[in-house]
Amino acid sequence: MIVLGIDPSSTATGYGLVELDSRSCRFLQCGCIRAPSNRTLAERLALIYERLGEVVATAAPHAAAIETSFYGKDPDAASKLGEARGVVRLVLHQAGLEVAHYSPSEVKKAVVGRGQARKEQVQFMVAKLLKLKELPRPLDASDALAVALCHVHQSASQIASAPARRKPEVEALLKRVVRR
Amino acid sequence: MIVLGIDPSSTATGYGLVELDSRSCRFLQCGCIRAPSNRTLAERLALIYERLGEVVATAAPHAAAIETSFYGKDPDAASKLGEARGVVRLVLHQAGLEVAHYSPSEVKKAVVGRGQARKEQVQFMVAKLLKLKELPRPLDASDALAVALCHVHQSASQIASAPARRKPEVEALLKRVVRR
Repeated sequence: MIVLGIDPSSTATGYGLVELDSRSCRFLQCGCIRAPSNRTLAERLALIYERLGEVVATAAPHAAAIETSFYGKDPDAASKLGEARGVVRLVLHQAGLEVAHYSPSEVKKAVVGRGQARKEQVQFMVAKLLKLKELPRPLDASDALAVALCHVHQSASQIASAPARRKPEVEALLKRVVRR
Repeated sequence: MIVLGIDPSSTATGYGLVELDSRSCRFLQCGCIRAPSNRTLAERLALIYERLGEVVATAAPHAAAIETSFYGKDPDAASKLGEARGVVRLVLHQAGLEVAHYSPSEVKKAVVGRGQARKEQVQFMVAKLLKLKELPRPLDASDALAVALCHVHQSASQIASAPARRKPEVEALLKRVVRR
């Protein structure tokens, strides 16, 4: 199963793909859709629509998850973030993907163990969990990989919490891949 | 020139089209893209994308304007509104349209003369300005027509404020179509 994680933004939307099998969770790719702030919001949204559409068409993920931080200190930035998230949601829906949502603190807790972790700590733990030799860059991309790992965590937890359906692979996965 | 006005919402996006010539501003059509709240937000955004795309393709407007109310009392509703607005902005950009923005109070002031007017007052004045025999319905649609009229108002005012480029048609238009 291929899981796509997304950290939406109107200027830098991170995406990360991981592949999950019965034994492990493997890094596939990550990147960042940069939309320069000197372009109009409409141009940036169109860029996200096109580039994310290409990523989805190429990687053909089976599941998707997005980070949802609705409210920031700056109402204008929060508004633009909302518009970017709407376009991300549209692309994923048009690709037939159901979308899970996680708050920034849920994502951080899943990979670092603390809801208030810094982005650099998230980046470090993402590299460790996915056995990467280098840190995934930029931070938007490592954040997106963390969203994908958070979804793996949550999905595995849900299966694990249903004892009748628990499988040895899931037990192993929970120990190896994600931090409970 | 055909002007498309839009009042975005994740459940009921109003649209209204008016045609402007040297003598008057004429009603073309209006409607509402209803997206039932029992459907997922992703489904509703996809519906807005498709239906608004059809409206734009059929009516071929030359200019577009949207009402931008960023912040409501309910943060969750404001967030969904932001996502819907992002999809609306994307559709208009993909159709090659530049988009003007007006706040609810700017729209109300342009058609009623007061920034705090009720929706029913906006509906009444829209019918009067466009010489309609019946009130445009639903209120989302009359709001959208008001956005289009607000844009006509602003565009005419901008031209009018540049004396060297002022034309008799604009003078007439300002008197007949819009309330200053």
